[in-house]
Amino acid sequence: MLGHGTVGSAFAGLLEERADAIEVEVGRRPEISGVLTRSRGDFDDIVERSDLIVELMGGVEPTRDYVLRALEAGRHVVTANKQLLSQHGEEVFDAARRGGVQVRFEGAVAGVVPAIRVMAETLAAAHIERVHGIVNGTTNYILSEMARTGASYEDALADAQRLGYAEADPTEDVTGKDAAAKMAILARLAFNAAVRLDQVSYEGIERLTADDIAYAKDLELSLKLIGSAERIGSGLAVHVYPAFLYADHPLASVNGAFNAVTIESPAITEITLSGPGAGGIQTASAVLGDVVSAMIPPPSLVPPAVDVPLVTDTEFSFYLHLEVADRPGVLAQVAEILGMQDVSVKSVVQKGLGEEARLVMVMHPVLESKFRAAVDLLSRLDFVREAPRVIRVIEETF
Amino acid sequence: MLGHGTVGSAFAGLLEERADAIEVEVGRRPEISGVLTRSRGDFDDIVERSDLIVELMGGVEPTRDYVLRALEAGRHVVTANKQLLSQHGEEVFDAARRGGVQVRFEGAVAGVVPAIRVMAETLAAAHIERVHGIVNGTTNYILSEMARTGASYEDALADAQRLGYAEADPTEDVTGKDAAAKMAILARLAFNAAVRLDQVSYEGIERLTADDIAYAKDLELSLKLIGSAERIGSGLAVHVYPAFLYADHPLASVNGAFNAVTIESPAITEITLSGPGAGGIQTASAVLGDVVSAMIPPPSLVPPAVDVPLVTDTEFSFYLHLEVADRPGVLAQVAEILGMQDVSVKSVVQKGLGEEARLVMVMHPVLESKFRAAVDLLSRLDFVREAPRVIRVIEETF
Repeated sequence: MLGHGTVGSAFAGLLEERADAIEVEVGRRPEISGVLTRSRGDFDDIVERSDLIVELMGGVEPTRDYVLRALEAGRHVVTANKQLLSQHGEEVFDAARRGGVQVRFEGAVAGVVPAIRVMAETLAAAHIERVHGIVNGTTNYILSEMARTGASYEDALADAQRLGYAEADPTEDVTGKDAAAKMAILARLAFNAAVRLDQVSYEGIERLTADDIAYAKDLELSLKLIGSAERIGSGLAVHVYPAFLYADHPLASVNGAFNAVTIESPAITEITLSGPGAGGIQTASAVLGDVVSAMIPPPSLVPPAVDVPLVTDTEFSFYLHLEVADRPGVLAQVAEILGMQDVSVKSVVQKGLGEEARLVMVMHPVLESKFRAAVDLLSRLDFVREAPRVIRVIEETF
Repeated sequence: MLGHGTVGSAFAGLLEERADAIEVEVGRRPEISGVLTRSRGDFDDIVERSDLIVELMGGVEPTRDYVLRALEAGRHVVTANKQLLSQHGEEVFDAARRGGVQVRFEGAVAGVVPAIRVMAETLAAAHIERVHGIVNGTTNYILSEMARTGASYEDALADAQRLGYAEADPTEDVTGKDAAAKMAILARLAFNAAVRLDQVSYEGIERLTADDIAYAKDLELSLKLIGSAERIGSGLAVHVYPAFLYADHPLASVNGAFNAVTIESPAITEITLSGPGAGGIQTASAVLGDVVSAMIPPPSLVPPAVDVPLVTDTEFSFYLHLEVADRPGVLAQVAEILGMQDVSVKSVVQKGLGEEARLVMVMHPVLESKFRAAVDLLSRLDFVREAPRVIRVIEETF
């Protein structure tokens, strides 16, 4: 391991936690053979004792030198370093080819969203026409907050800083430079062309106003910082800019600190991948996925199954729709029967319909068998006029 | 190739179209060495002359026998056969391990959405807690249409059949059985447990009414056919059922014939993958991605870059916000200047604000240089009171 900051410590923790499972999966157990930081460790000694180098120091120098030396010495490298790859990518990729080893970098773009793997592997044979991405969680959080609360850019930024979504100096994020580095890397993979950071033009979100977003809402548009890489004739265009998205665009509903990438190609129409942007544990998780992939030669996709029991009775939230006679005491009786089976009502709407009434309820999560028992009892009551209608309800848990 | 139906012919066409690019990428050129259909071809002869078997016959017999024999003979197998894998998966996976070869099956679940690869590779080391999927495009199309138009289930189904989204006999789709097969495969990968189709309980959408969906809209819920696979204590639960989703759930905005899968794990929070469900060309594209992956030993993620020029001036739709003096002829002059630069207005809203007025316009796509030139001219007009505000607009193109 090179570097031991936030992502580095998260990675070391995750590796220890998952080492047993990885050993089952891959047949080898990963172990950290050495750590290089500014104050400790010897690079040559660490390379000597390793099959694979995890680079989480960040920055361009001296990281570049370490990465090139590791690859040339025939060690796989897993890195999350967008600066290095967007500025010196070809040098790194060439060194990997010369060393006959892998360089993997899922963590460098969009955290745990598997954009790199999908482009490099699933779509290796596809003719990609365009990539649109929300690849900076800080700016997406700020824009989402401006849209949700009507806050000004300055207030939303201060809020993001307070919550740890933006750094004290947010320049790299809010100017679009961070997104530009990530788009250079995505464009490299999408089009197999050597795109460098200094070739990507970018605009940030610093000059956007609450007014812009209010107008967007009127027009049913949402405002996002978009990275775009596309083929134009026989050339390419790679930009980062704030843009309004129509409501049916797959990136329009990506809110908060989430990242997402939409990839367009004639044969696949479009694929969208979304998930949390960079966070220590999420980036560490992407890095670990790369480490495991590099450990598998040849890829054996499906390891032997282990024995896990199937559970048939589980908890759900339920929606319950009852057509009942409109007379006193009905709701109380319904509530009593539900309560006897430990079914707790989250919300209820009652509508009178002349002689009848309609009860529409959503329940808190409850074991299905108990809920079904309650519904069975309810269906036998004389004031229940039709078979009760039951549908499960799923809440977003994050 | 085994089988030559819709997906088979799409695959053969795509392979020919992409063979040059694949040769550059992988260093070997894929060629179809033989085709087995009911009326032609000899299985043993085809296996003899192939490195890899693409199985697109579908069904369980005699496909199962062919797939097992190919794997045992040391041939990689790429298949899109959900019936086979959900009923005899362990037998197939065991044969692949014994033969020391790969079996890949991205096309079996959610068309081109890379759910299989992401679970088997990106998340190989993750502890997956839950998978939620919209894995049947037919039912998602029907439910989306019911929500959009208020149509009954019967009318929406007839509409889907007319458009080719549903088969003449839609039983497998509308009962949830097709989704159950796909969830058995996803659960196998997510939890490394041998889940078979007959262990997955399923409910379909046949008994849902326009009324259910109308209520859902009132409650800001959307109704989807959901496949769910999750850990419950030390066991697993795998179900398919219609469910209401709260608006912030990542699957709530997946409409039409699209498929999507959300994967939850503590270290990654959640990832969502979405794209078109099974169609001939999309499934063929997923199959080709698998073929290319199986051709790469060892994985070399980034091939040498080719030379592609960067284009800096490209077409965009633009939003333009002008604060102007509220006097006659202003809109006409603005329109004239835009027209001189070939900028065509798609929509315009004018609001009076006492002495001033606000023009908010969205343009049809235009070369950025032309639009910027028009804005530069506009900004110099005496009736334009503030610097014009310009933001790009992105439309969903599918």
